Amino acid sequence: MKVAIIGFGVVGRGLAKVLYSKEKCLKERFGEFKVVAVCDRSGAVVDEDGLNLKEVIEVKEKTGKLINHDKGRELSPLDVIREIDFDVTVEVTPSNLETGEPAKTHILESFKNKKHVVTANKGPLALYFKELVENAKKHEVYFRYEATVGGAMPIINLAKENLAGNEILAIRGILNGTTNYILTKMEKEKVDFETALKEAQELGYAEANPSQDVDGLDTAAKIVILANSIMGLNKSIKDVRIKGIRKITPEALFLANKRGYTIKLIGEIRENRLVVEPMLIPLESPLNVKGTLNVAMFETDLAKEVVVVGRGAGAEETASAILSDLIWIKKRL
Amino acid sequence: MKVAIIGFGVVGRGLAKVLYSKEKCLKERFGEFKVVAVCDRSGAVVDEDGLNLKEVIEVKEKTGKLINHDKGRELSPLDVIREIDFDVTVEVTPSNLETGEPAKTHILESFKNKKHVVTANKGPLALYFKELVENAKKHEVYFRYEATVGGAMPIINLAKENLAGNEILAIRGILNGTTNYILTKMEKEKVDFETALKEAQELGYAEANPSQDVDGLDTAAKIVILANSIMGLNKSIKDVRIKGIRKITPEALFLANKRGYTIKLIGEIRENRLVVEPMLIPLESPLNVKGTLNVAMFETDLAKEVVVVGRGAGAEETASAILSDLIWIKKRL
Repeated sequence: MKVAIIGFGVVGRGLAKVLYSKEKCLKERFGEFKVVAVCDRSGAVVDEDGLNLKEVIEVKEKTGKLINHDKGRELSPLDVIREIDFDVTVEVTPSNLETGEPAKTHILESFKNKKHVVTANKGPLALYFKELVENAKKHEVYFRYEATVGGAMPIINLAKENLAGNEILAIRGILNGTTNYILTKMEKEKVDFETALKEAQELGYAEANPSQDVDGLDTAAKIVILANSIMGLNKSIKDVRIKGIRKITPEALFLANKRGYTIKLIGEIRENRLVVEPMLIPLESPLNVKGTLNVAMFETDLAKEVVVVGRGAGAEETASAILSDLIWIKKRL
Repeated sequence: MKVAIIGFGVVGRGLAKVLYSKEKCLKERFGEFKVVAVCDRSGAVVDEDGLNLKEVIEVKEKTGKLINHDKGRELSPLDVIREIDFDVTVEVTPSNLETGEPAKTHILESFKNKKHVVTANKGPLALYFKELVENAKKHEVYFRYEATVGGAMPIINLAKENLAGNEILAIRGILNGTTNYILTKMEKEKVDFETALKEAQELGYAEANPSQDVDGLDTAAKIVILANSIMGLNKSIKDVRIKGIRKITPEALFLANKRGYTIKLIGEIRENRLVVEPMLIPLESPLNVKGTLNVAMFETDLAKEVVVVGRGAGAEETASAILSDLIWIKKRL
């Protein structure tokens, strides 16, 4: 199976490293995953016989650029999608929650060119879910996006496949590791929000501009994706009631603890309503996971409650989810 | 898709009730699941146009028997497998961890007659895993057994599909709800093992003869199935070091709590070794789930730790797992 990776930041390089370092074992178990193109804003490298990924990664990490030795002219991502022969586009450019671009265009152009798509990109899915899914169907290609929610934590495919036959009545969970880290820190060390945030930034768990995480937009985008993909709704970010964690104090956490609760930033879908807000969670609840962990609880008619816990971010962790989608497609080609 | 249910106890009837009560919704989403035969030790009912499941369940629950109005002669399960036209055998006779029978024969005879098999029966899988899997492959039929471990909790298919591409380095978990109920009760109410066991029996969580649960054999059978199916080992129950929970005292639980731990009966597969024994688990670990819940933690190379929590038993819960396997097969026929 021939793959093109569009976007070569932490996630794209993480996937490339995994495909390179596990090449032999993956080939034995599932067949070959041949990366024939890698591109980002800095350029594109293409080799229809399969790129030397080790070299591509090294050059990118040394020079900051993708340099193509073979082609006479510069190829844009859209050129790659239109002109190069491959089976699956892996779309992992940075998420944009306002426009969904450039990922949306890359994805639609891939469908049009009969390429299956695997993505880790929340933006286009949170904004244009229905359009994208219908477009994939129209062009008879697969569209998989496990990595958009919960990183390595199985969630979308788990609900749609392992819980197939169940009606999913509600989903609630911690879908953002940064806020969980901050709240865990505030609870354990009785420090205030600003102090915990600063440490999260120093450790690389929070961005310099932490708003998308701490104000709840990141979680909102994820529950929109879950609502649409798992529960068959047709929601967008503007349908989510969002409240972040900036006003949570160590005193509030202390008082909650005294009554047998903790406070977590929870994303919830229930009775057609989407909410992101700090909620009281019983200390003994499976939702009370610590540090940067993510967790999701499904309420279903047959299986009742099913909970899954995992790492919501990280290069290898996200690669794990992308790879499971690539393998799923590989088995069907 | 035509289905025969072999075994009509709690699990078989639970599946029949689900197929009957969700008939319309399942048909819309996945197509038809037509049950053409149901049999157990008391007899067999057959209708190649599809049984009236509501009636079959009612008669069985009223008379204790399966009564066939259509056929002149009594059909045994093997007669049904050999003579009736259907696609999938659902084997849900009682588990026998010493011989694996009669399930093993039902499963092998199904393969021979080109029937796919879905089972909730631990016995044959814990004793003859390799033989069964190879036999299914030889006859080119599907063999699915999600319901054998962890009830409604997704575990086998989760590891093989959602975590495909990962190397599973270790698995540990609470795979028996009865022992978890007893230990939770002892911990919370400071009662001894016998008292907690008695209450579990009164509530129907433990059998009159509780040995398979409390002495660890049930958990051992399940980790054998996980070791073979997920980690590609070739183990049998005799390869498991087994220790039960009879010697755990409320004092031991109290002391563990004081140090930040609890005690759980854990099944573990690590470095080719299979162990079932009471282990100290940090109070904050995702493995510290309460009551009758089951939990499993996978340690993997890419996703790192992934934890899943769910209900390990119950008629509808087991039906959920069987149904996910039936749907999986339906999609491939």
